[in-house]
Amino acid sequence: MVDYSLAAEVARPYGETVEAVRSALAEQGFGILTEIDLRATLAAKLGVDVPAQVILGACRPPLAYQALQVDPSIAVMLPCNVVVRAVDETTSVVEAFNPDVMLELGDTSALQPVAQDAKDRLTAVLAAVTEETR
Amino acid sequence: MVDYSLAAEVARPYGETVEAVRSALAEQGFGILTEIDLRATLAAKLGVDVPAQVILGACRPPLAYQALQVDPSIAVMLPCNVVVRAVDETTSVVEAFNPDVMLELGDTSALQPVAQDAKDRLTAVLAAVTEETR
Repeated sequence: MVDYSLAAEVARPYGETVEAVRSALAEQGFGILTEIDLRATLAAKLGVDVPAQVILGACRPPLAYQALQVDPSIAVMLPCNVVVRAVDETTSVVEAFNPDVMLELGDTSALQPVAQDAKDRLTAVLAAVTEETR
Repeated sequence: MVDYSLAAEVARPYGETVEAVRSALAEQGFGILTEIDLRATLAAKLGVDVPAQVILGACRPPLAYQALQVDPSIAVMLPCNVVVRAVDETTSVVEAFNPDVMLELGDTSALQPVAQDAKDRLTAVLAAVTEETR
């Protein structure tokens, strides 16, 4: 079974990592359509404490459009979520929804080039964010 | 392979269906954390025309919290997307991301009750929106 997330550990504090991810997404042509501060949301709604984390809804419009042309139902998997989560004061994790999931669950090979393009770009985002700290 | 969306056709115009879905989600304890007007986004970014559709990011905080306790990576599949799309002037489609996908891709049975609860509620949302028109 395909891993449903592409993940990288980053040797940077949470806030810095969020900013690095925003820049790397922009460089790869992704806009950020939605943003959820998950820690704040769960604290407000349930009074619980989870690690600092944000869910960024990333969308590269040409890819989204291509995918929808193949299968309109794919909208339930858009935008592509990129999560940044604090591990400790100096370390963060970045995880992106793996576009291969679309291939695993969809029934058409027409999605393959779109998913591959998205995966290549997200992998480049993770590499950029990780490498800056080396 | 599990279907990645739960879908229902509704004999109502798009705008009415969106409002019915909002009400039904609220009744099932889902808040709407994000909202993307996909048609407007793609028109603005690419100048293309797709059917009227909105992606609602639905979240029931207790379920999200339980899922994160089992597997923090599940955040890449949150919130649960519910899409309303116009078919024609009198008909719409409502599709929700099927929580069974989390079971298909995750490796733990601890997610099972959470996914089942989410699926039951989303199925109730689709039923409510569909039945009102019968």
